[in-house]
Amino acid sequence: MKANLYEGNGTFRVHDAEIKRPGPQEVRVQIAYCGICGTDLHIYDGGLDYRIKNLPQAVGHECSGVVAEVGSQVTAWKEGDRVVVRPLDYCGSCVACKAGHSHVCANLKFMGIESEGAFQNYWTVHERTLHRLPESLSLKHGALVEPLAVCCHAVSRGELKAGEYAVVIGGGPIGLLTALVARYRGARVLVSEVNPIRLAKVRDMGFEAIDPRETEIVDYVYQQTGGDGADIVFEVSGSQPGLDTMVSLPHPRGRIVLVASYPHPMQVFLRELFMKEVNLITTRVYEAKDFDDALEMMTKNTFDPEALISRIYPLDQVQQGMQLCASGAGDVVKVLIDCQDPQ
Amino acid sequence: MKANLYEGNGTFRVHDAEIKRPGPQEVRVQIAYCGICGTDLHIYDGGLDYRIKNLPQAVGHECSGVVAEVGSQVTAWKEGDRVVVRPLDYCGSCVACKAGHSHVCANLKFMGIESEGAFQNYWTVHERTLHRLPESLSLKHGALVEPLAVCCHAVSRGELKAGEYAVVIGGGPIGLLTALVARYRGARVLVSEVNPIRLAKVRDMGFEAIDPRETEIVDYVYQQTGGDGADIVFEVSGSQPGLDTMVSLPHPRGRIVLVASYPHPMQVFLRELFMKEVNLITTRVYEAKDFDDALEMMTKNTFDPEALISRIYPLDQVQQGMQLCASGAGDVVKVLIDCQDPQ
Repeated sequence: MKANLYEGNGTFRVHDAEIKRPGPQEVRVQIAYCGICGTDLHIYDGGLDYRIKNLPQAVGHECSGVVAEVGSQVTAWKEGDRVVVRPLDYCGSCVACKAGHSHVCANLKFMGIESEGAFQNYWTVHERTLHRLPESLSLKHGALVEPLAVCCHAVSRGELKAGEYAVVIGGGPIGLLTALVARYRGARVLVSEVNPIRLAKVRDMGFEAIDPRETEIVDYVYQQTGGDGADIVFEVSGSQPGLDTMVSLPHPRGRIVLVASYPHPMQVFLRELFMKEVNLITTRVYEAKDFDDALEMMTKNTFDPEALISRIYPLDQVQQGMQLCASGAGDVVKVLIDCQDPQ
Repeated sequence: MKANLYEGNGTFRVHDAEIKRPGPQEVRVQIAYCGICGTDLHIYDGGLDYRIKNLPQAVGHECSGVVAEVGSQVTAWKEGDRVVVRPLDYCGSCVACKAGHSHVCANLKFMGIESEGAFQNYWTVHERTLHRLPESLSLKHGALVEPLAVCCHAVSRGELKAGEYAVVIGGGPIGLLTALVARYRGARVLVSEVNPIRLAKVRDMGFEAIDPRETEIVDYVYQQTGGDGADIVFEVSGSQPGLDTMVSLPHPRGRIVLVASYPHPMQVFLRELFMKEVNLITTRVYEAKDFDDALEMMTKNTFDPEALISRIYPLDQVQQGMQLCASGAGDVVKVLIDCQDPQ
């Protein structure tokens, strides 16, 4: 089979690879599509080399596929089942796992970073990582389930309720998906984005969106909420201006969810949070329920997945896909790799 | 009557003042004792001048007293009742008040800052601010109820449960009271403090305490918790090293409560919180229940209030009390003003 491996130094190249037969509780999945995530771009730019121990290694974790072979003890899955993978490998025995929070396992291996990922024809994974792809969803759209689950988790962590006023700071792929989940759950959503192409995209998806350099966002939000302030804010920009803005937007006892990841310590005006007793809520990956929620949401046809898929590259062009995403072209939302081609 | 007024520029001076007769829902309280709070020291150093509109003004808000006169519509209180004051003046109509969170009212006036306080013989306040001082508690010890309520609120915000491992960063007056509340509620408590005199004081109160410059606190906490990490961390130091340390201490899904106030934006290593899905919980002042909790805790004799009262000055020596607190002498926990003397 073919596998596109990260070799280090921003290089991805197709290699011939051995098919890995499944262990007793494992399933070999023929990967159909796998999206390129912001995390993959951090791999591409070398920022996650400290987490990848054995180069070259396949990465990629936003995938759909079809069961090709099951291990001797697997009864829940059979050849031909269409699936998506929840790429978390947890220990089961740490303080987090024992408390039922295996997604933040103290020894968590994120499959596609700490262990091999999906940019290959076949990926052999533990059966517990699989979720069934409903018949009404295509394998192509199935590749969007993982990033959508990230956003389902973020919105659930924020305990968003129908009728609330939500601000999403940052209109990139995760910002857009967060906005879609918040709207699906009944929130009134405002998106803040500085890139004009992304801004247009967000508006195309039916959202109210502003450029905070043109519209004073704090005044705007208070005006729109009768002087109260936002119920909930999602910081997805990962930027210092985003962090500076977020503290001013919620009303007292409102919530802020930090969806972005910040590689370095950042300035936060904690007094603003204190004065309003606003908690900073963190969110990491997803739990099984978030995959279920994402799959259910996608079957409801509340948005057009095609509008999110900007381009599809064959497996031997992961490098090109990374380059396109990293170019910062505002019109790129999600790039998929077709892992069926070439075989 | 006499009132000790803040005149600006770090100056407090006794003035003759008119007794203010209570309005229909008000109560005139003869103030017995009033403690000097960290907030009062911010007034002393000029840092809160922007919140005090009409100088000179009486400040002070950690008080006990005896009802001297009640307004025409007051039925719950009568002359001679011993009380403590919850010094919050809220609007009742903003988004926070309507949601039952009047302590973070969008238009909150903190009595003793935005309006006059307790450093005077009599203080006329709304009847809804009063809590009854149980017979078993002296007026002197009653002056500790307000700061203890701050800490009851902080511990409740953190949802501390019996049996948890709690770290309190900072062993000043509020750190010490937070540790006392956490211990009273069944936590195992470690206090981190750099001042050797405060460290000794904390140990005198029966706490395990370390100087983080001598003992590597992160290693220590993981060692003490079987490799798990702390369940909950209270950041009370208000310092950058405190903020740097706090993010490393909790286990995944543990909690951090920011008890200190930070006048300027601070550096926070948000990635550490994200990786463990640890929320930053803020806490401001108290709700009525926190006063009830503080009063109940004090009646249980779980600590010796005398050990917290470092010195008592008469009303005409508020200035000296402020000077002593601001001197940073590590052996000063709580300074009280005896507002009965001079009349």
